[in-house]
Amino acid sequence: MEEPILLREDHGAIARLTLNNPRALNALSEEMLDALAAAFTALAADETIRVVVLAANGKAFSAGHDLKQMQGARGANDGGQSYYERLFARCGEVMQMIPALPQPVIAEVHAIATAAGCQLVASCDMAVAADGAIFGVNGVNLGLFCSTPAVALARAVPRKVAFEMAATGEFISAARAREVGLVNRVVPLEELRAATTALAEVVAQKLPVAIRLGKQGFYDQIQQPLAAAYDSAGAVMAANMMDPGTDEGVQAFIEKRKPNWSEG
Amino acid sequence: MEEPILLREDHGAIARLTLNNPRALNALSEEMLDALAAAFTALAADETIRVVVLAANGKAFSAGHDLKQMQGARGANDGGQSYYERLFARCGEVMQMIPALPQPVIAEVHAIATAAGCQLVASCDMAVAADGAIFGVNGVNLGLFCSTPAVALARAVPRKVAFEMAATGEFISAARAREVGLVNRVVPLEELRAATTALAEVVAQKLPVAIRLGKQGFYDQIQQPLAAAYDSAGAVMAANMMDPGTDEGVQAFIEKRKPNWSEG
Amino acid sequence: MEEPILLREDHGAIARLTLNNPRALNALSEEMLDALAAAFTALAADETIRVVVLAANGKAFSAGHDLKQMQGARGANDGGQSYYERLFARCGEVMQMIPALPQPVIAEVHAIATAAGCQLVASCDMAVAADGAIFGVNGVNLGLFCSTPAVALARAVPRKVAFEMAATGEFISAARAREVGLVNRVVPLEELRAATTALAEVVAQKLPVAIRLGKQGFYDQIQQPLAAAYDSAGAVMAANMMDPGTDEGVQAFIEKRKPNWSEG
Repeated sequence: MEEPILLREDHGAIARLTLNNPRALNALSEEMLDALAAAFTALAADETIRVVVLAANGKAFSAGHDLKQMQGARGANDGGQSYYERLFARCGEVMQMIPALPQPVIAEVHAIATAAGCQLVASCDMAVAADGAIFGVNGVNLGLFCSTPAVALARAVPRKVAFEMAATGEFISAARAREVGLVNRVVPLEELRAATTALAEVVAQKLPVAIRLGKQGFYDQIQQPLAAAYDSAGAVMAANMMDPGTDEGVQAFIEKRKPNWSEG
Repeated sequence: MEEPILLREDHGAIARLTLNNPRALNALSEEMLDALAAAFTALAADETIRVVVLAANGKAFSAGHDLKQMQGARGANDGGQSYYERLFARCGEVMQMIPALPQPVIAEVHAIATAAGCQLVASCDMAVAADGAIFGVNGVNLGLFCSTPAVALARAVPRKVAFEMAATGEFISAARAREVGLVNRVVPLEELRAATTALAEVVAQKLPVAIRLGKQGFYDQIQQPLAAAYDSAGAVMAANMMDPGTDEGVQAFIEKRKPNWSEG
Repeated sequence: MEEPILLREDHGAIARLTLNNPRALNALSEEMLDALAAAFTALAADETIRVVVLAANGKAFSAGHDLKQMQGARGANDGGQSYYERLFARCGEVMQMIPALPQPVIAEVHAIATAAGCQLVASCDMAVAADGAIFGVNGVNLGLFCSTPAVALARAVPRKVAFEMAATGEFISAARAREVGLVNRVVPLEELRAATTALAEVVAQKLPVAIRLGKQGFYDQIQQPLAAAYDSAGAVMAANMMDPGTDEGVQAFIEKRKPNWSEG
């Protein structure tokens, strides 16, 4: 029996998803996109999980779309066009499930992340990288400009950096990725899992409702003009204040004691 | 008689506002928000002032909202909800007065700036920090995600940096704050006031109408699509050209002499 | 016979435009804006050209608008107002021709780029700078806030960096320009042309349709909310897939051989 292409292990409140198709360099095939979508849907409904780590097995984090599968669609009557339209729409849907997920998602990038694999990193709320990891949107080398990966990338890093990566197909180092905002932390490979886990545990110890309301509000406001952003974020913060856990958390801070969130 | 919680001293064309409630770590209480709003309203009408510095007394720049005051509202019939809605709306209003002010506002951050205190720094047009200052939006540690601070923060720094700060409650150093765009300059603590004053004096020596039109136009265009941004910025620049002081300034440059703006 | 103020030399698929009015520090006079617009219009229709380099002769890259010419308009009945409105609208049009051009445009900045000269750099898709180049939007020193340059600048670098540059008139180094996203690469002056050419050649070797569709899609999506951005970028990528050159490129990659794009 074959191993699944996407693994999920839960460690307490942290779910660890692992891309597990190393022979295909964890390509984002239809099956992998479906597996990610199913995992995100399950996680969205799972109140025991507070943080998600997205890691990968094998030599690459992810090499992006499954090119053989894509070429296989060319035999259709329309030469594959409707297939490609559906595929990129589907990929965009799955990527947008990440900011829409109630729990923060941390990419754990141990190696190369390229094309839609780099898009996956850019789409996560946070990312931790091994110091040898590299990042590129290099479809242009094959004649396919990474237009959808650039949607996520150009919202994470300065515009000229994103354009250069997409137009040249060249890679940036983990250190440069942190400088420009694509990843949050860079550590030696042998400390990577521990560093991601430590970051996940910091977030997992927060009051879940605060993280859930806060994350949703963050992505709502970020797309709005300033005044509308304040209106929506102010409503989120007032709702957050009304949670009994927040009452306890603020009161505990005032009384210089730890909050009692065990019932949370 | 108690000292006011917000001080204003004018030095020539530079107004220095100082948060002056060190025992409360310069919390942004209702009273402090009202004092800031009143100060900004007065400054907006004060043509003698060309630049505003926003500094603070005591061990912290500002610790954000006044948590005791917020907890005190829980006794209301609605558990405080309408109070919290008004409070965050009010805070957003006061923050938005900063980009709306005719004069540039420079935050002078000598120490920790946290939650709405960090939002205040992010909302200023420019910021100078002591090298030991730290920045965080750590309400999440109490169960209250810093949703409104993140409005200002996520418009100043890359998205993943803002998300990490809000979701972890962890602080960034002054050096990292400069790297990511939250502050403009970092200096040793003992040089902080001199550095802020020097920056303020550079701006104060400019033609006031240029700064006033330019600042307003800057925040107008930044929220618009590119073509609309150019339309609005082009109109601003043409209006700027029509000012007699600009005529003098450009002419003086051509004639390689100092502009005579003493009548300005 | 006088030399033209804008030179164009084609080297294979790379067009090199050179601002060539060194005595005027390559001011963006009406004539220079017209020359740039004409060059961009010609390039947009020229399928032999795949990349454009924008360089400059003389001591400066460009000093921005032609101040003498601008002052000359003050004698009109309206004091020059309608002239200035047309001038800044025209300048905005020419700047917007750069992202609208099918080919990527790389600024090669050997020296000072100031005011609309800095805007020109910010408007290019990519920029390579000599390590001694400096960047500023210093019209404010003459009483004219660089409102239209700030449109391009504030879309390339963090907001507080752009504001500081516009309000102080101070310059940033090439190294800082790279850190904040205004330029992509910084090299010693004697290596500048080689570095720009190398970058241009990388892009010139890509499949032209991929670059053309990709560039247009990049600037379309970047101004849209996330879901709309994915819709438009997904359609671009599906269209890209339907090109025979992309079929060949992807197939060649699968077969571990070089693509045969000689017919492209």
